[in-house]
Amino acid sequence: MQVYDAPLRDMRFVLDELWVDDGFGDLPGLSEFDSELTGAILEEAARFSREVLLPLNQPGDLEGCHLENGVVRTPKGFKDAYRQFTESGWSALAASPEWGGQGLPERVNKLVEEMTCSTNLSFGLYPGLTHGGALALEAHGTDELKQRYLPKMTSGQWSGTMCLTEAHCGTDLGMLRTKAEPQDDGTYKITGAKIFISAGDHDLTENIVHLVLARLPDAPAGTRGISMFLVPKFLPKEDGTPGPSNGVLCTALEHKMGLKASATCQMQFENSTGWLVGEVNKGMAAMFTMMNAERLSVGIQGLGIGEAAYQSAAWYAKDRLQGRALSGAKYPDKAADPIIVHPDVRRMLMIMRANNEGCRALGAWVARALDAERLSEEPEVRARAEDFVALMTPIVKALFTDLGHENANLAVQVYGGHGYIWDSGVEQYARDARIAMIYEGTNGIQALDLVGRKLGANTGRLLRSFFHPVSAFIEANKGDGPMKPMIEGLEKAFGALQLSTATIAQRGLADPEEAGAAASEYLRLFGLVAMGYCFARSAQIAGLRLAFGSEDKDFYKAKITTATFFFERLLPQVSAHFLSIKAGKKSMMALAEEAF
Amino acid sequence: MQVYDAPLRDMRFVLDELWVDDGFGDLPGLSEFDSELTGAILEEAARFSREVLLPLNQPGDLEGCHLENGVVRTPKGFKDAYRQFTESGWSALAASPEWGGQGLPERVNKLVEEMTCSTNLSFGLYPGLTHGGALALEAHGTDELKQRYLPKMTSGQWSGTMCLTEAHCGTDLGMLRTKAEPQDDGTYKITGAKIFISAGDHDLTENIVHLVLARLPDAPAGTRGISMFLVPKFLPKEDGTPGPSNGVLCTALEHKMGLKASATCQMQFENSTGWLVGEVNKGMAAMFTMMNAERLSVGIQGLGIGEAAYQSAAWYAKDRLQGRALSGAKYPDKAADPIIVHPDVRRMLMIMRANNEGCRALGAWVARALDAERLSEEPEVRARAEDFVALMTPIVKALFTDLGHENANLAVQVYGGHGYIWDSGVEQYARDARIAMIYEGTNGIQALDLVGRKLGANTGRLLRSFFHPVSAFIEANKGDGPMKPMIEGLEKAFGALQLSTATIAQRGLADPEEAGAAASEYLRLFGLVAMGYCFARSAQIAGLRLAFGSEDKDFYKAKITTATFFFERLLPQVSAHFLSIKAGKKSMMALAEEAF
Repeated sequence: MQVYDAPLRDMRFVLDELWVDDGFGDLPGLSEFDSELTGAILEEAARFSREVLLPLNQPGDLEGCHLENGVVRTPKGFKDAYRQFTESGWSALAASPEWGGQGLPERVNKLVEEMTCSTNLSFGLYPGLTHGGALALEAHGTDELKQRYLPKMTSGQWSGTMCLTEAHCGTDLGMLRTKAEPQDDGTYKITGAKIFISAGDHDLTENIVHLVLARLPDAPAGTRGISMFLVPKFLPKEDGTPGPSNGVLCTALEHKMGLKASATCQMQFENSTGWLVGEVNKGMAAMFTMMNAERLSVGIQGLGIGEAAYQSAAWYAKDRLQGRALSGAKYPDKAADPIIVHPDVRRMLMIMRANNEGCRALGAWVARALDAERLSEEPEVRARAEDFVALMTPIVKALFTDLGHENANLAVQVYGGHGYIWDSGVEQYARDARIAMIYEGTNGIQALDLVGRKLGANTGRLLRSFFHPVSAFIEANKGDGPMKPMIEGLEKAFGALQLSTATIAQRGLADPEEAGAAASEYLRLFGLVAMGYCFARSAQIAGLRLAFGSEDKDFYKAKITTATFFFERLLPQVSAHFLSIKAGKKSMMALAEEAF
Repeated sequence: MQVYDAPLRDMRFVLDELWVDDGFGDLPGLSEFDSELTGAILEEAARFSREVLLPLNQPGDLEGCHLENGVVRTPKGFKDAYRQFTESGWSALAASPEWGGQGLPERVNKLVEEMTCSTNLSFGLYPGLTHGGALALEAHGTDELKQRYLPKMTSGQWSGTMCLTEAHCGTDLGMLRTKAEPQDDGTYKITGAKIFISAGDHDLTENIVHLVLARLPDAPAGTRGISMFLVPKFLPKEDGTPGPSNGVLCTALEHKMGLKASATCQMQFENSTGWLVGEVNKGMAAMFTMMNAERLSVGIQGLGIGEAAYQSAAWYAKDRLQGRALSGAKYPDKAADPIIVHPDVRRMLMIMRANNEGCRALGAWVARALDAERLSEEPEVRARAEDFVALMTPIVKALFTDLGHENANLAVQVYGGHGYIWDSGVEQYARDARIAMIYEGTNGIQALDLVGRKLGANTGRLLRSFFHPVSAFIEANKGDGPMKPMIEGLEKAFGALQLSTATIAQRGLADPEEAGAAASEYLRLFGLVAMGYCFARSAQIAGLRLAFGSEDKDFYKAKITTATFFFERLLPQVSAHFLSIKAGKKSMMALAEEAF
C-alpha cells in the first residue's frame, strides 16, 4: 500500500535547525518567509500531496498515457489535479515575482518538490519541466519572449519541455541534426525529430513551450554549433492566446519501465517557427541553465521516492504478522509478531531511513547555497555558494537517485512476494525510481562531471567550498566528548576523500582515463562523506537539544540513533571505494573490445 | 536488444578444467558423460535456448498470461516451445533414469538451466518446478504415486507446482490454514486458498500435479502440523490419462513487476482429492527436499539473467556511438566512438563479467558436490558433499540473485535512456530478476538460514567443508610468485570471514538478534570470499595454461584480467561488510517501533 505523510518534523529540522549557521550569512528578502509562513506552506503542500497527488499515483501507473489522434491523454484525474495545482499557486511557488511567482526560497521549495516526487513523480514532471524551462528563458530570452511566455509558464497555464535528445544522440549532443533555418523576420524554421521528450505532449495545458536544441545551416560541427530555440506548440496570437498549430507533433509514446503517467514523447518538428533563446551557437550553455536546475531536482526525485518507499515499507513492517522475534515472541497475543521485530527487516528500514535523512540534510544545505548564490549581497558569499552548488550538483543528482532506487528495492524486499505484485505499490517505486539514475545526464556522466570539470576547476577552488567547513567542523569538535566516535569516523572518511582526490588529480593529469576509471566510486565516496558530515552536525544539534531539555525528545533521540547507524554500518563503505579507486584503471581497461 | 550466445567456453572451463581436483574424487556413473557428450549437450542446449526460447522472451513479457474462463493461457508460442522442449528431452535431462530421465549430472544440468534462465526465465519456471516437484515425490512418495506420476512429470507431459504460500503467510508457513480431511479410502479432501503459485494453471500440459501443504484436523499448531499432499488438477483414470476435474481452480492471476509470461496464480482447492506424500505432519521436511533444490536453481536464475544482461550490455556498448574516448578518438573515421571506450562503461561491464564468472565457477563447485552427494561410494565424501551443499545453498541463492539483479540494473545503465524503454529488452531483465531475490525464501531468510542453522550445525562442521579447501589453497600457494597479490587478498578476506564467523558465533550465543543483525552482510562477505577463491583458482589454472603454451590465449588472459579486476575492485567490499558486522545490532535495534 502506498502510504505517505510528509516528514514535516525532519523537514523543519533541516530548514530551521540544522543549517542556521550555514556560513552563507543572512540573506535579504527571506525575512518574510519566517518559520510560521514556511511551516504553513509545508503543511499545505503535505496535505495537497497526500490528498490530491497520492491517490492518482497507482491508477496513473496502471492507465498510463495514450496517444489518440495525435494528442496525448494523461490518466484520469491528472487534468483536474493539475488545475488544482496551478489554481492553488504551486506552479508559481518558486518562480520570480516579476512574472507572477511567489519567489519562495529554494530551501523551502526543494522540500515541496520532495513531497510532490514522493506522492506522484509522473505528475511532478509536468510542472517541474515548466519551471526549468522558465529559468532558462528568464536567463537567456529576449524581453519580448519573456513578456509573452513567462507569465503563462509561471501560472502553469502553459507548460514547458526540454528537447535535446535525438535517436542517435543523448549524452553526445554534438551529433544532433535538428535544423534551424533563419527567416527574414528574425524567426527560424525548425525541422527535426527528438526523442525522450518528457511532457512533449499532453492535455493538461492549452499550450506547450518547447526549448529545442538545433543547428543553423552554417553552424560549426559538434556542441559549438548548437543553438536554443523556443518553439510553441501553438503560435500565440496577438492577445496572447494560443493560435494556429506550429507543426509540432507527437509521433509516438515510449513504452517505459515506469513513470507511466508521464508522457515520454517522440516529437517531430516540421518547419515549426522558433525564436532564438540566447546567442547563436551558445545553445548548450543556455540549456545548461535549465539542466543544472533539473539535475538538482532529479536528485530530489530520488529522495522523494526513497522517502515514499521507506514509509510504505515501515507501514508494512509494522502491519504484517509473520514469525516470531528471535529473542522470543514480542506480541504473544497475536498470531505472529509484526516483521519489524526481525533484525534484517530493521536493517533494511534503517538503511532507508539513513539514506533519506542524510540526503534531505545534504539537499537542504545545497538549497541554501542556491538561495545565497541568488540573494547574498556579498560577492565572496555568492561566489562561494556558486562553487558549492556547482560542486554538489553532480553528487546530489547521482547519489540521491542511486539511494532512492536502493530504497525502492529495499521496500520491495521488505514486502517480500507481495512487493513484487503491482497492488502493493512498492514495485512501482522501483520502476519509477530507475529513470532518475539516467535522465538529465546518467549518473556516470555526473561522476565524470565531478572529476573532470569540478575537481580541477580553478585549481580546486570548488572543493574548498566543501572541504573547509568539514575540516573546520572536525577540528572544532575533536576531543573526548560523546561525539568522539562520529568525529573520528568522519575524520577517517574525510581523509580517504582527500587522499582519493589527490590520487585522482595526480593520475588524471597524466592520463584522463585514470580519472574516468575512478569517477563513479569517487562520487559515491564523496557523497558518503558529505552525508557523514550532515549526520555528525545533526547528531550534535540533537544532543544539545536533549541536553537543554527539549520537549521533542523522541525526534532528537531517533536522529542520534539514525546518525549512529549511518556511521557504524554505512559510512564504512568508504573503505571499499577507497581501495577500489586506489587500484586504478589497469584491470578495468585491459581487455580488448572483442573480448566482451 | 536481447542478444545471447551461451558462454560455452567459460562453461567448459568450469566443467572440465576448474574443478577437476574438487576433493570429491572420481564418481561412478559419470564416465559416460565424457567431455564429448557433455559438449554436445551444451551446444544443443545453447542452440535451443537461442533459437527457440529467446525469441519468445520479449513477446512473452508484452503479452503476459491471461485467465480466460477459468483457464490460464500462456503467451503465443509458449505451447509450441514447450512441446519442442519436452520432445527434445530437455525436461527429462536431469531426471532419474528409473522414471525415464537421462540422469545427467548436476554439473552439466546446472549449465543447461543457466541457458534457459538467460533466454526465457518465465518459460523456464514451468519445467523447473516440475523437476523440483518430481524430486520431492521421488524422495517421499509411495511407490504407487511414483509409478503413476513420475513418468509423466519426467517426460514433461504433466507439470508440477509447489503450493505453500497463503495470503497471510509466506515466510511463516506455520500459520497456514488449508485443510486436509482424511477419507475412508486413504485419500484426503483438500480445501483452502493458496497464492503466488507459479505455473498453478496453464495450457502447456494436459495435467498439473500440485504439491500442497495443508493441515489435518487434529494437527498440532505451527509448522509441526503441516503435511504434504499430491493434488492433481485432473484425477488420473485407470489408464493413466487425465480424468475428471478435481476441484482445483485458478481464481486470479497476479499483476506482477516482471516474469509476466509465468503464470502466478491464486489457487482454490475445494474438496480436492489429495494423496499424502511423506508422513503426516512432516510436510515441511518433505517440502524442503523440493525447496533446497529450488533454491539452488533460483540462484542459477540470478546468474542466467546476469549473463543475458551482460551480453546485451556488451553488445550495445560496442554498437552505440557516443562521445570520444578520454584519451582521444579511437575511431576517428566514425561519427563518435562506441561507448565501450569510456572507463565508466567498462567499469559496469567488468563488474557484470566478474559477477557472472565468479558465480558460474562457484555454482559449478556446488553442482559437483550435488553429484558427489548422490553418487560417491565413500560415506565421508558423501557427508562432506552434503555439508557443503547445505552450507552453500543459501549463499548461492542470495548472492547469485542479488548480483543478477545488480547486473540487470547495470545493463539498463549502460543503455542509458534507451535501457528504460521496453524495446531495449534490458529493463525486462531488471524486472524479471527482481523476484529471484524474494521467492523460495527471501534473501534475508537465506542469510538467517546461513547464520542460524548452517553456521552452528554440528559445532561448525559444515563450515569446514569450505574453510578447509580455502585455507589449504592459501597455504599451498603462498610465496613470491605472480599469484602473490591474489593470494594475499584472498588471505585477508578469508581472515575477515573467519573473524566475522567467530564474532557472530560468540555474540549470537548470548543474543540471537546479534546473529540476525549480522546475517545479510555476513552472507555477502562469505559469498565474496567464495568468489575470490574461485577466481584465484581460475587465474592459477589460466596462468599455467598460458605458461604451457595453450592455443586459447585470449580466453585465459581474459580470465586473469577478470580475476584481477575482481580482486582489485570488488573483493575490497569485504572490508565494509566486516566493519558493519563488527558494529553489532545496537543502532539497528534501538528505535522504538513507533519511531518508524
